[in-house]
Amino acid sequence: MGEGSERITTVEIYGQSYYVRGMSSPEYIAQLAAFVDERMREVSELTPTVDTLKVAILAALNIADKYLTARKKLQAVEQLVADRTEKMRASLDSVLHTDST
Amino acid sequence: MGEGSERITTVEIYGQSYYVRGMSSPEYIAQLAAFVDERMREVSELTPTVDTLKVAILAALNIADKYLTARKKLQAVEQLVADRTEKMRASLDSVLHTDST
Repeated sequence: MGEGSERITTVEIYGQSYYVRGMSSPEYIAQLAAFVDERMREVSELTPTVDTLKVAILAALNIADKYLTARKKLQAVEQLVADRTEKMRASLDSVLHTDST
Repeated sequence: MGEGSERITTVEIYGQSYYVRGMSSPEYIAQLAAFVDERMREVSELTPTVDTLKVAILAALNIADKYLTARKKLQAVEQLVADRTEKMRASLDSVLHTDST
């Protein structure tokens, strides 16, 4: 998501401001911040706590779960692409072979 | 990643213990905790701060970035699967059609 040089973007998450240094666009950083903020608000509704650190950690665990699940699916789909391409190629080959005999 | 009824797993993240309630196996929860712990340690090496909440929030942003990137890739690969399948089917159809004329 990088585009150009490093810059600092200010975001608000769970009522507090943070400076985020990075190569990404302010729009993308804002999208990430909104995503984390939403997860924290979900967690705080389910977990009765006033400990913001705990809320942030549980939100991080929740997002890590989403990431590992997406990564696993991605690997499975990439394997599917490879398998299917090979199968289709074999089918085409077999048709072309039938043709030439 | 659910398997059976809800349970409580204790994990240690960034030197502090947390009770995590959920349907996932203790092994998977431990994997998520190790992942979050690692991201927090990476962040703390890059960002000079003693504020653990800030470290947790920056780690959450980092993991959210990985998740959104993986989700985007997954959507692209799924589209590729659909497009390729259609293309291969069209190729097969055209060969079979050439055959019958």
